[in-house]
Amino acid sequence: MSEPARGFASDNAAGAHPEVLEAIAAANVGHAPSYGADAWTARAEEIVRGHFGAESRAFFVFNGSFANVAAIDALTRPYEAVICTNVAHIHVDECGAPERIAGAKLLTVTTEHGKLTPDDLRRWESRRGDEHHPQPRLVSITQATELGTVYTLDETRAIATAAHELGMLVHVDGARLANAAAALDAPLAALTTDAGVDAVSFGGTKNGLLFGEAVVFARPELAERFAYTRKQLGQLASKMRFVSAQFEALLEGDLWRRSAGHANAMAARLAAAVDPIEGVELTHPVEASGVFARLPPATIARLQAELAGGPAFHAWGDEPGEVRWMCAWDTTAEDVDAFAAAIARAMASGSG
Amino acid sequence: MSEPARGFASDNAAGAHPEVLEAIAAANVGHAPSYGADAWTARAEEIVRGHFGAESRAFFVFNGSFANVAAIDALTRPYEAVICTNVAHIHVDECGAPERIAGAKLLTVTTEHGKLTPDDLRRWESRRGDEHHPQPRLVSITQATELGTVYTLDETRAIATAAHELGMLVHVDGARLANAAAALDAPLAALTTDAGVDAVSFGGTKNGLLFGEAVVFARPELAERFAYTRKQLGQLASKMRFVSAQFEALLEGDLWRRSAGHANAMAARLAAAVDPIEGVELTHPVEASGVFARLPPATIARLQAELAGGPAFHAWGDEPGEVRWMCAWDTTAEDVDAFAAAIARAMASGSG
Amino acid sequence: MSEPARGFASDNAAGAHPEVLEAIAAANVGHAPSYGADAWTARAEEIVRGHFGAESRAFFVFNGSFANVAAIDALTRPYEAVICTNVAHIHVDECGAPERIAGAKLLTVTTEHGKLTPDDLRRWESRRGDEHHPQPRLVSITQATELGTVYTLDETRAIATAAHELGMLVHVDGARLANAAAALDAPLAALTTDAGVDAVSFGGTKNGLLFGEAVVFARPELAERFAYTRKQLGQLASKMRFVSAQFEALLEGDLWRRSAGHANAMAARLAAAVDPIEGVELTHPVEASGVFARLPPATIARLQAELAGGPAFHAWGDEPGEVRWMCAWDTTAEDVDAFAAAIARAMASGSG
Amino acid sequence: MSEPARGFASDNAAGAHPEVLEAIAAANVGHAPSYGADAWTARAEEIVRGHFGAESRAFFVFNGSFANVAAIDALTRPYEAVICTNVAHIHVDECGAPERIAGAKLLTVTTEHGKLTPDDLRRWESRRGDEHHPQPRLVSITQATELGTVYTLDETRAIATAAHELGMLVHVDGARLANAAAALDAPLAALTTDAGVDAVSFGGTKNGLLFGEAVVFARPELAERFAYTRKQLGQLASKMRFVSAQFEALLEGDLWRRSAGHANAMAARLAAAVDPIEGVELTHPVEASGVFARLPPATIARLQAELAGGPAFHAWGDEPGEVRWMCAWDTTAEDVDAFAAAIARAMASGSG
Repeated sequence: MSEPARGFASDNAAGAHPEVLEAIAAANVGHAPSYGADAWTARAEEIVRGHFGAESRAFFVFNGSFANVAAIDALTRPYEAVICTNVAHIHVDECGAPERIAGAKLLTVTTEHGKLTPDDLRRWESRRGDEHHPQPRLVSITQATELGTVYTLDETRAIATAAHELGMLVHVDGARLANAAAALDAPLAALTTDAGVDAVSFGGTKNGLLFGEAVVFARPELAERFAYTRKQLGQLASKMRFVSAQFEALLEGDLWRRSAGHANAMAARLAAAVDPIEGVELTHPVEASGVFARLPPATIARLQAELAGGPAFHAWGDEPGEVRWMCAWDTTAEDVDAFAAAIARAMASGSG
Repeated sequence: MSEPARGFASDNAAGAHPEVLEAIAAANVGHAPSYGADAWTARAEEIVRGHFGAESRAFFVFNGSFANVAAIDALTRPYEAVICTNVAHIHVDECGAPERIAGAKLLTVTTEHGKLTPDDLRRWESRRGDEHHPQPRLVSITQATELGTVYTLDETRAIATAAHELGMLVHVDGARLANAAAALDAPLAALTTDAGVDAVSFGGTKNGLLFGEAVVFARPELAERFAYTRKQLGQLASKMRFVSAQFEALLEGDLWRRSAGHANAMAARLAAAVDPIEGVELTHPVEASGVFARLPPATIARLQAELAGGPAFHAWGDEPGEVRWMCAWDTTAEDVDAFAAAIARAMASGSG
Repeated sequence: MSEPARGFASDNAAGAHPEVLEAIAAANVGHAPSYGADAWTARAEEIVRGHFGAESRAFFVFNGSFANVAAIDALTRPYEAVICTNVAHIHVDECGAPERIAGAKLLTVTTEHGKLTPDDLRRWESRRGDEHHPQPRLVSITQATELGTVYTLDETRAIATAAHELGMLVHVDGARLANAAAALDAPLAALTTDAGVDAVSFGGTKNGLLFGEAVVFARPELAERFAYTRKQLGQLASKMRFVSAQFEALLEGDLWRRSAGHANAMAARLAAAVDPIEGVELTHPVEASGVFARLPPATIARLQAELAGGPAFHAWGDEPGEVRWMCAWDTTAEDVDAFAAAIARAMASGSG
Repeated sequence: MSEPARGFASDNAAGAHPEVLEAIAAANVGHAPSYGADAWTARAEEIVRGHFGAESRAFFVFNGSFANVAAIDALTRPYEAVICTNVAHIHVDECGAPERIAGAKLLTVTTEHGKLTPDDLRRWESRRGDEHHPQPRLVSITQATELGTVYTLDETRAIATAAHELGMLVHVDGARLANAAAALDAPLAALTTDAGVDAVSFGGTKNGLLFGEAVVFARPELAERFAYTRKQLGQLASKMRFVSAQFEALLEGDLWRRSAGHANAMAARLAAAVDPIEGVELTHPVEASGVFARLPPATIARLQAELAGGPAFHAWGDEPGEVRWMCAWDTTAEDVDAFAAAIARAMASGSG
């Protein structure tokens, strides 16, 4: 009984929340106009506006990769650049899609815990106006970050202010925005539109949907032509009601916050359980649903072998010895405790 | 009681088949590796190979737009061109995505009923080898066509032979390939890989899935690098098991053929019912699930107004007076009969 | 001695005008700031403004292919479309560059003599606002056309008016704009900016430069970001003074008009000489520097064989039997007479 | 009389060598086939083969920006990546063109003196085969480097060997390849094709041409389709003879080596003159035609103000206090001595 029923590889490894599946089944009645001209989509868009502000505009898409790419494409010209961290998902994990599709150069900043600061935005200003260099136009921050940390409201506001002063817009890769909102105990708008953010990729998949993300623009003029961008980039679902119905289920009540808050709590529980273990070092503050730790490479290998039946967790980064443990909406306290116990055993036997 | 319960606007207006939803629910158990490294995907890929040949390779994607675009991108260089008809979906309805994303020039042929012939492929050969002109590399045919017609096996084979002689590959936009197979009473391979087709966009959405299409390559060497293309073009689902489980439900037994054959039968029933109506002229042979007809523009307007609650059907083409009536997997005989009766009434009142 | 010293294959086959070479030699003194920050460029830009209006802005580039592509790229978003004729150089002879680079779909109109009409612009309006279709944003006309015809000032103005009413901009592919201006005996502005044209690719190469074209925008706001576009598309010359000095030589006085007018006169002379020949049929009005004719394919072959030492002229179009005879700035009356005589002989011997 | 007649801003600030202008004038005789089907191009291509090997293939283009971009485009698929240094011209100075046009992700390595090592190539191998990451396919080194250093033949060969072992190709950005060859006293092939390099952007502009570069592939199969790439990327000159004639003048005899060797000698002279000056620190080995130095920012400003009439030299890098002094084919010993004297004076007065 030492093995957790669910692993810690990714919140993408979890399935869909039962309430989400129920919403899909409920939407599966008769015919409905395709491509978003249906009643579910109208309702879901209204619900998103309730979260992000009356001036906001939402577009549902298939996945987070292209929520980000389409947002970048919509907000930049090909000769403009995007400032992000060196661990940004758009930089590291998208097979070069932002560059290829949006033509955008990514200007990266090395950070300690995955968070940009206002000062980082000014690094390229000496080349403003010089045609030999892509012109910074968009700042993309990830919230919660790829390293499990969270920007405070003030930090986000400071970045937005600095960006706007420099003539730039701010995009939030919010694949785990719900986790950040739960961590900060703040509404979604407080983290984004109210803090000066111009566009958000709001993640549904990692928060318990089958699939589906929303691109949210803070103001209508930013969204004016996004319908074309979404279509041209292959992200317009023909049976849209089945994306929209999921978002309705997620965002109408507090399912999004319950799920995200639970994942966060499980990460905190895991961090608390492993922190005291001799030889395990947490590498980043545990502020959302991910725990990052350093432990002996041999122990990592032993642990991965022991927890058979799929990768229980992934190594992290290019250097051996660091791991990422992600909690999901369905991670249980028992999963966490069993996993922490397995880690403790592995560490103990490693030192034996 | 004169109104049909389901309209004839599009097979995209239909929902998901109950067996498909059941498969999704059944797959929603615990954690599974993301991005396709799961058991459902392995099984579904094996099932596709059973349909298209042991050498074939399948990749599941979100939608038909980018099944086509990604196939084109994978099979052409940017300076190469794609030959298709002037009514091809890739030419007319994708917001220019093939051009923008794959960089491909589309060379179009005007046809009577939406079907290319081998002779059409030779039109650009005088410019073969001339760097000022994009070089034809891919022939893309739609099966069943956008006009509701079907290529016979011999017609497909003749196109493939001609294409290969000219150094070109053949792609089938098979958003409704199941309808063509049902119409021809032939296995999927007979229409495609066995006839010399090199790549297929096999449609699931119009055949009763929530969403999901498969890009199938006839031979492994064509598929070698498609995993990168799929990812870079934003079509890699993170919770892939939910796409794969749908395809398993569709293709393991004969659900695909039952659904498509039923839609075809409904179209035949509708054609038979409206053909005798004075003033209604069928504009294309009714060979699959779509019925195209010409009738007085004023009657069209009256009919669309009468059948409230969403567009019961769409106008077709740039000239007024032509309509498209699509049948879906869930269209009933009662729907057809009520719709045909409404048409008859509208025509009668129009002549009064 | 019956053979012309210069052929009629293309105005690209001619060399550079001696005054242009002199200007280059004169500019070859010492060091000068690169990338256009030099005195020659400042002067040349001023001279262009003198021709196209004080509000106009000019950018020198290497060649006509990318003068057009860069203009399209600057004036459209990737989901927008360009309306042009089916013989437009951007559609036929650029290896698909507009599509690949600017992402633009080209919407083509079949015309008799290469000229669009205002009515042609309205063909796609029924799809305005529909995200499935690229949105027409730019009309590109060629002046003089690829078929040797010329838009009158009224015709250009009518197109511009219609385009602007539909929210579109107008671009002129002016690889031979000088020939059109000479034909109309009008200043360059009259054909373009004064007639409502928004952007011009003004051709230098075919008018006696070694190489070099100018992209001219009618108003500063259209040009605001073109410096980036030019650089990113590889058209920013590092030793820019050598492009600018050529334009200074071309446009400061009337070299441009003298050269173009002369080529036009030679075409008129050729047309007058061959028109009476039995079996030679002029296929388009001869209004600029090109003569298009139909004659027996066998005669064409004999003529091309007789006039050895390079292609004296090219076949035109996809159907055998049509040819294009282009005159250049250096074509002489003796060239024309000898060529016409050769044609007459070939026709006579063909009938013998 | 203390001011040098020519500045040290860039080798792009120099004009064309008189022998090059003479070659252009000599080529300006009568008509010649356009787009490279002329005798000058045939001869120049043959001459390039003489330098780079009988199996090599050369294509003349307009500028170095797109010599590089087109080479990358030809040698990579959009999901493939290019490894280069963090000071590589393709990374820093091309306005993001490689990313936008070729779709290539650039993977950068921070180096001390602008030179990659074989070990650098292995950094991304842990992600080989993972579709979430662009796959390294091309290594691009700059020779001579952007920092004025030169790869030895052994260093180049080691990089090529390592690259080939990893399934990668090697490209040399040779905007100043002639300077490197002169520095190494080696033939062009020794630095490139004989050392295992697969493709070269061979610079003409910085070596005394008006404009013009050559893309050279080591083997015909790499070049098979480059004619289309060159055309589609806007780099095919219509009056090609005027590019080819320049290359003939440059490469037929030893003009290329004389010019480059002279520029190198001037840089060595400058380095020798400024190195003893108190407060001037050379920041990179002076191995080709560029001298990089650190001196007090205030002195830099004073020096730039003193040497009026255009920027005598440029600041270098993002941090104040570093400068680049470039020598050209026409820099004289008097220019160098006067410039060194001005530097010495400025330093002396700065300390006063």
